[in-house]
Amino acid sequence: MRAFSFCFQLIKWNSYRPSFLLKYLYFALLSGPSSFSLRSHTCGELRSHHVGHRVILCGWAQYLRQDLFVILRDFSGLTQVLIPQEESASHLKAVLSELTAESVIKVTGTVRRRPAGQENKMPTGEIEVITEDVEVFNVCCKLPFEIKDFVKKSESLRMQYRYLDLRSSQMQKNLRLRSQLVMKMREYLCNVQGFVDVETPTLFKRTPGGAKEFVVPSREPGLFFSLPQSPQQFKQLLMVAGIDRYFQVARCYRDEGSKPDRQPEFTQVDIEMSFVDQTGIMSLVEGMLQHSWPAEKGSIKVPFQTMTYEVAMRDYGVDKPDLRFNMKLIDITEIFTVEVEFLRSALSQPGGSIQAICVPSGAKLFTRKDLEELKQTANTQFGQVDLFPLSFIPRPLLGKLRLRCAELLESCGVSLRDPSAFHFLWVVDFPLFLPKEDEPEQLESAHHPFTAALLEDAHLLYTEPHKVRGQHYDLVLNGCEIGGGSIRIHKASEQLHVLKNILKEDPSLLSHLLEALDSGAPPHGGIALGLDRLTSIIVGADSIRDVIAFPKSFRGRDIMSRAPDTVSEEELKPYHISVRWPTEGGEEGK
Amino acid sequence: MRAFSFCFQLIKWNSYRPSFLLKYLYFALLSGPSSFSLRSHTCGELRSHHVGHRVILCGWAQYLRQDLFVILRDFSGLTQVLIPQEESASHLKAVLSELTAESVIKVTGTVRRRPAGQENKMPTGEIEVITEDVEVFNVCCKLPFEIKDFVKKSESLRMQYRYLDLRSSQMQKNLRLRSQLVMKMREYLCNVQGFVDVETPTLFKRTPGGAKEFVVPSREPGLFFSLPQSPQQFKQLLMVAGIDRYFQVARCYRDEGSKPDRQPEFTQVDIEMSFVDQTGIMSLVEGMLQHSWPAEKGSIKVPFQTMTYEVAMRDYGVDKPDLRFNMKLIDITEIFTVEVEFLRSALSQPGGSIQAICVPSGAKLFTRKDLEELKQTANTQFGQVDLFPLSFIPRPLLGKLRLRCAELLESCGVSLRDPSAFHFLWVVDFPLFLPKEDEPEQLESAHHPFTAALLEDAHLLYTEPHKVRGQHYDLVLNGCEIGGGSIRIHKASEQLHVLKNILKEDPSLLSHLLEALDSGAPPHGGIALGLDRLTSIIVGADSIRDVIAFPKSFRGRDIMSRAPDTVSEEELKPYHISVRWPTEGGEEGK
Repeated sequence: MRAFSFCFQLIKWNSYRPSFLLKYLYFALLSGPSSFSLRSHTCGELRSHHVGHRVILCGWAQYLRQDLFVILRDFSGLTQVLIPQEESASHLKAVLSELTAESVIKVTGTVRRRPAGQENKMPTGEIEVITEDVEVFNVCCKLPFEIKDFVKKSESLRMQYRYLDLRSSQMQKNLRLRSQLVMKMREYLCNVQGFVDVETPTLFKRTPGGAKEFVVPSREPGLFFSLPQSPQQFKQLLMVAGIDRYFQVARCYRDEGSKPDRQPEFTQVDIEMSFVDQTGIMSLVEGMLQHSWPAEKGSIKVPFQTMTYEVAMRDYGVDKPDLRFNMKLIDITEIFTVEVEFLRSALSQPGGSIQAICVPSGAKLFTRKDLEELKQTANTQFGQVDLFPLSFIPRPLLGKLRLRCAELLESCGVSLRDPSAFHFLWVVDFPLFLPKEDEPEQLESAHHPFTAALLEDAHLLYTEPHKVRGQHYDLVLNGCEIGGGSIRIHKASEQLHVLKNILKEDPSLLSHLLEALDSGAPPHGGIALGLDRLTSIIVGADSIRDVIAFPKSFRGRDIMSRAPDTVSEEELKPYHISVRWPTEGGEEGK
Repeated sequence: MRAFSFCFQLIKWNSYRPSFLLKYLYFALLSGPSSFSLRSHTCGELRSHHVGHRVILCGWAQYLRQDLFVILRDFSGLTQVLIPQEESASHLKAVLSELTAESVIKVTGTVRRRPAGQENKMPTGEIEVITEDVEVFNVCCKLPFEIKDFVKKSESLRMQYRYLDLRSSQMQKNLRLRSQLVMKMREYLCNVQGFVDVETPTLFKRTPGGAKEFVVPSREPGLFFSLPQSPQQFKQLLMVAGIDRYFQVARCYRDEGSKPDRQPEFTQVDIEMSFVDQTGIMSLVEGMLQHSWPAEKGSIKVPFQTMTYEVAMRDYGVDKPDLRFNMKLIDITEIFTVEVEFLRSALSQPGGSIQAICVPSGAKLFTRKDLEELKQTANTQFGQVDLFPLSFIPRPLLGKLRLRCAELLESCGVSLRDPSAFHFLWVVDFPLFLPKEDEPEQLESAHHPFTAALLEDAHLLYTEPHKVRGQHYDLVLNGCEIGGGSIRIHKASEQLHVLKNILKEDPSLLSHLLEALDSGAPPHGGIALGLDRLTSIIVGADSIRDVIAFPKSFRGRDIMSRAPDTVSEEELKPYHISVRWPTEGGEEGK
């Protein structure tokens, strides 16, 4: 390795105009996973054609049979390292025999073919390395759990010792797949399609009604930054600025307190284009996903299926249907019109209908307990229908029952949702506005106030805004929403009308955006994909925590470092804030 | 374009197994800067070989001679669009004649060769487009300034209307160069060298003494997150986790109040490797910069020059010397030993010496005023020397005088520092600890407490820690520090000794890191490059604000959106904080 280093230096001095041979050598030595490293090879790469080579390996002692061999591990795999048995190498034997599991060592040795019959199916199973020298970098103390993959650990222990948990081959795979996925997305956007990677601020102004935005006190009394939920305003301003095609793998923030499988900080692949329509953005995203899809997960077919919001709600009772299985909601109103009195009375109400789901083999497979549970769920949830007789509620409930039936069928051994299948779906033609939950006579944006109306509905903005559908599109994968976007309003007058007259919001809070739309704004639109969620579906993880290196716990805490933590009043002084400690009565003191 | 769209769909339906011809067509249509777009070409790409083609262009009306032509601009350049003069096209003429500058339009037309003698040197100067159809997307209202590059605007006006300022060709170039630079760095790290792009949290725990960290109140009374100044702890933990090679283009935060040319949020290219030494990291960074260097800026030679901290201070009076010009500090003590009484007395003090800078042609070029200013600077600053007679102070002052002399020479027309030259320098062998400014008998880390000692100095850690040099390296470009890194301590016992015995800090605050170092930590090291600074030097910008899309002002504010802003007491309630308004006497109320 020293000779190698010397060689690097020699070659590099000449690298400005290297001859072909030198150039070849230069790149051979200065690229790949062992470049610039104390090792010559990784633990996963030695094969029978390396027999006779002298190699240097660095890694963790995964398994020790102390008098015979060490299984050495790094990110790439395992190699069997033999402990020499000759008297002359007794010092090596002594060092290796004293090692604890997970200690870190450097082994210099020669690759040899394993004796006949001792080969195994590991990628390096044809060879072993006979130790000639060893250096112990770090002796591992007792660990809270073993690194082996089959050792199940509790979630909180995994989080507390995340640096150990990440040594598992599954977590190594997940983080590496995520890195590759993002890299290929970047290559597609930047190199193939001419997008510009632009960073936007995360210390920003609080958006109107931004109840889920973290606040960050500044050094000016009473003034706060806020951590934005997305770069929405900035990406639109970049279009007004003529950037034409923007993307960013953007850190976003949402303070939702404790929600399972949500993170207070998360990452989205954020995209915006000028001079584009809905089809353009959808085709771009299809191209990007096809380009970046991990080869080992099979290929994906484009274009993806498209479904209107109306059909999704009608047939699946949800705006993000899982199309890996059927079991649609069926309207069986006609069958019942004359048969049963209480049904006929229900049907006579406006919008009344009778819906069913056909669960294949359900009658055969479901136990009495299963049926009881389904009935219970239906009863409990349908009980609420009376409270909102005119809203769209029954179908979402049937949508939930459909998913619950699928789970029950699967627990009976029916393979319904293929975990290796990836079913993408675009859902389009969403309503642009919805009645506010607490003030149903008021409208709020179904997604956000910047979405443009469908061209054929645009005139209704001024007469019947509740009927307007938006140029919004959601991307659904296996029943999970992994992205959403829209064509934006690019005229100040229309944006002002939506903010002021329909949403009844104070437009002065967005005056910079309104001014920008009056100074030469191109038609534009975009999308944001949830990277954590997308990656977790690709790797088949139960939780986004399995594709994030250092996730927060269910309660939004970092268990390893114990964050959030106390801060002294002295340290808060420059920010002109003080803590309002809750008093015993539940009220907060001043 | 409609026909194109139809063609896309047809081809895409077949794209799963397209024939060679279809595949070719597919990629030709679905890649490049006009893919998925309402335009067929950009405004910068039409040449004489396009003559006769029917094209669709979208862009901004940069310049209007209303009865004759419009100069249409997009990010890629300008095209001259002719207004038809025939009576039959009077409606087109009417629409185009009413346009205001910076309005956004779509023009459909045919490319023709310009009449002889009317060609110019613009890239599209051989052709023009005769309008056949036009659509006005957005009419621009009166602007606060013109977009033309030669119009100088005030900094605050530029910031307030940043979306207009970004339309200038210089800002377009800067942001696009930055995007390309980062993309190539990623390709080198990820694709060539096997690095893994791992995202680390920005809602973290406050680090001990982290006075420059923004705090973020949580929903739990008295508990705060903090926005970290760098992913230092996380990247070391990733090495303990066996990730082997990590990088991240990481958003970092530093609350320094108002400092010119610093940003409260900034971006660093953050790198960490296992099983590596100082040479390895330095060679990696050289390779990365060589790989990603913009072709139009010439090539850079590796390896970079290396200089010890001691030599840098001795010869240039600074740890980040600008080596584009000479004018070293020269020790002329010997010449003066016998001549002058007061000098001899000064020299008799410990460490006494006489230093000089030779300014070529200074005597000829400097005016009396210049000399007076230099003398004044020297007097003012040397006056302070008496206060710290034993410290290293005189040389930094000479270092400053050296730079000031360079500025003066350049203002006299001497070309001293070539603005198109890029001189990289590694500065190494820094002291590991420095005396604290306010308590000189106490030591503090020169960089951070995780830096390992030089191997030959390691034994001094336990006896004379002030003499220890660290395995730290700074990367300097044209006299600016653009990066710094180190080989880290990878043994818990050594890290504990540094924290507890040398720095007198409470090690329990870093217990998670100490535990990690006890559970199989590989030797590791890394570096962080300041991306904003590096990019600004490459593009020759005066300020990092010229390479950041939406920078904060000198005072740390977002002038466009007016952030930070007030937040109501009601909105602060969930975070259990209240504002401490300063009282009239200057003290803060509770």
